[in-house]
Amino acid sequence: MKKRVSSEEVKLAALKRLKDRGVTLEDIAKIVYEMQVVYNRDLTMEQCLESVQKVLEKREIQHAILVGVELDILAEKKLLQEPLQTIIETDEGLFGVDETLAIGLVYGYGSIALTTFGYLDKDKIGIIKKLDTKNGKKVHTFLDDLVAGIAASASGRIAHLLRDVEEGEEKRAKENDEKFNEINVS
Amino acid sequence: MKKRVSSEEVKLAALKRLKDRGVTLEDIAKIVYEMQVVYNRDLTMEQCLESVQKVLEKREIQHAILVGVELDILAEKKLLQEPLQTIIETDEGLFGVDETLAIGLVYGYGSIALTTFGYLDKDKIGIIKKLDTKNGKKVHTFLDDLVAGIAASASGRIAHLLRDVEEGEEKRAKENDEKFNEINVS
Amino acid sequence: MKKRVSSEEVKLAALKRLKDRGVTLEDIAKIVYEMQVVYNRDLTMEQCLESVQKVLEKREIQHAILVGVELDILAEKKLLQEPLQTIIETDEGLFGVDETLAIGLVYGYGSIALTTFGYLDKDKIGIIKKLDTKNGKKVHTFLDDLVAGIAASASGRIAHLLRDVEEGEEKRAKENDEKFNEINVS
Amino acid sequence: MKKRVSSEEVKLAALKRLKDRGVTLEDIAKIVYEMQVVYNRDLTMEQCLESVQKVLEKREIQHAILVGVELDILAEKKLLQEPLQTIIETDEGLFGVDETLAIGLVYGYGSIALTTFGYLDKDKIGIIKKLDTKNGKKVHTFLDDLVAGIAASASGRIAHLLRDVEEGEEKRAKENDEKFNEINVS
Repeated sequence: MKKRVSSEEVKLAALKRLKDRGVTLEDIAKIVYEMQVVYNRDLTMEQCLESVQKVLEKREIQHAILVGVELDILAEKKLLQEPLQTIIETDEGLFGVDETLAIGLVYGYGSIALTTFGYLDKDKIGIIKKLDTKNGKKVHTFLDDLVAGIAASASGRIAHLLRDVEEGEEKRAKENDEKFNEINVS
Repeated sequence: MKKRVSSEEVKLAALKRLKDRGVTLEDIAKIVYEMQVVYNRDLTMEQCLESVQKVLEKREIQHAILVGVELDILAEKKLLQEPLQTIIETDEGLFGVDETLAIGLVYGYGSIALTTFGYLDKDKIGIIKKLDTKNGKKVHTFLDDLVAGIAASASGRIAHLLRDVEEGEEKRAKENDEKFNEINVS
Repeated sequence: MKKRVSSEEVKLAALKRLKDRGVTLEDIAKIVYEMQVVYNRDLTMEQCLESVQKVLEKREIQHAILVGVELDILAEKKLLQEPLQTIIETDEGLFGVDETLAIGLVYGYGSIALTTFGYLDKDKIGIIKKLDTKNGKKVHTFLDDLVAGIAASASGRIAHLLRDVEEGEEKRAKENDEKFNEINVS
Repeated sequence: MKKRVSSEEVKLAALKRLKDRGVTLEDIAKIVYEMQVVYNRDLTMEQCLESVQKVLEKREIQHAILVGVELDILAEKKLLQEPLQTIIETDEGLFGVDETLAIGLVYGYGSIALTTFGYLDKDKIGIIKKLDTKNGKKVHTFLDDLVAGIAASASGRIAHLLRDVEEGEEKRAKENDEKFNEINVS
């Protein structure tokens, strides 16, 4: 029986694909920051970067990156059968498989992630815009949606996380108030 | 055995709920127009309205309207148990059930519909903006997402339809060319 | 600018891929029949076949077939980069991209289609079972899920259609009753 | 401004709703065990129970429980407007909103969770079967799907977790082998 691929191997390969195709985790974190800072002024780039890294730990996200980037590269090398070759090469507007693949990633991070993905797909910013701008022979039909999916997932994750932090602070503040009151009362 | 509800009855009830809550089909068609005219300058309001009507023929969309509006009304009347009452009444940002319900509608109309929904959820326009603006006692926690879902579905439907029309014209143009050539040749 | 691929071309290519990989529309219709006949004894194979054909008219379904079968073939020819090559070749259980792609198809046909897909993915029947049984060098990692997705979509479509037919008959029966009563009354 | 509901309050309310409607976490864990033990003979009920508890920590799952159970109870008390009252009371087959709500939960746990949900929806086992069996005045239209959704999510979670455990053991075994070899070599 063929040896099973280890999770570590899959993860490293997915991260390498992103890097090889010109996408850094910082690029993705910047999008997350831009999407989420309006809801929380104290948000830091470190939190965004950490959220992107956490999202990239997920097996199904790594698998989607491997598949999407593979298809982009094969299209660049003109190794796909027609009419798929032309559809992917020209980033045909009604194709839909690129978004379907990316949406699969996003769903796990709640409805905020899903709506953020939809927004990023229409109003491309940062590295997504750069990828979407056709330049010469590069094909990024899947990659721009994957990056939008990762950024959207990390955004959804942060929205939930910040709520937990806020509630923790409220709880502590409340406990401090109670302690203060106790002192005053006694 | 209890009598089954007829499809006609469900449809009429869903349309009535929209109207009773202040949403006309024209309001929704306007959003569709705004979202799609950038891709097709010849788009007409009639086409958008017809697309909205077609989308509203779908049983699962009618059901979602009945459920969502019912919850909005019950929240207005303060008839829900806590903490659900407060969550819906305040349109709690991390609630998510309103978007989940609406996304269910949208999926059937392809990835364009899904990304349009995400966009409308973030960048509220027209009647969606009006519904989202809290005024006094009205609760529209579900309705604004439902309307975004219907508009997004109708947008996705139009994108596919217009392609069919374009191709039909190309085909006819090509046939005309061929006929013309035949004439010239003969 | 590169010429756009016509819808007709995409459709024919998708149907050809299915045939080339050993899947007939009748094979898929048989699964639909088996899944739906329990809910309606009068169901015919013709209705199931027609439903499969209608589902295959959808652009996004045709695109998913083109992508999935391409990846299966590339894996057979060992033309994918590692670790993706091994993951697809061995139909790795936690891969998930195959199901994500197929679920994208299914969503448009309502929740019955979605649950039917889940069922078929676990309890493989007919041609899906045959495809899933590894024999020698053939890779069907994507194809078995695509077929399950098409069958599930056609099943969901039929469930809704049969309801419409039933209601049409009830309506006619009721009208006949009313006419009969009118006659009796007069 | 109205006080925000705390996450703790939402969580406790969701768990209470399940209990009040006759569903214990053990009931759900039993379904998880039955679905997953075929893939791993060493699976324990404790692992399944822990997985169910983890899934129930998720905000969006708690929200879905609050909404679904509320609608079941309102239908029992005949407090919904027609035709929604009849649709929910009779668990109308083409309703779909119950499954849409539950599928929202499931998506976050990968494609295994989604196909397990589809399976459980068709082949009801354990507490789901019990809930689905109409007895007198109880309405469980949403609850049976919610329980299937929680069980499916916990199943997907376990499938991924067990892989991590296996790989950890393989890694340790390999390291032990290497140490052993080192000793032998020296």
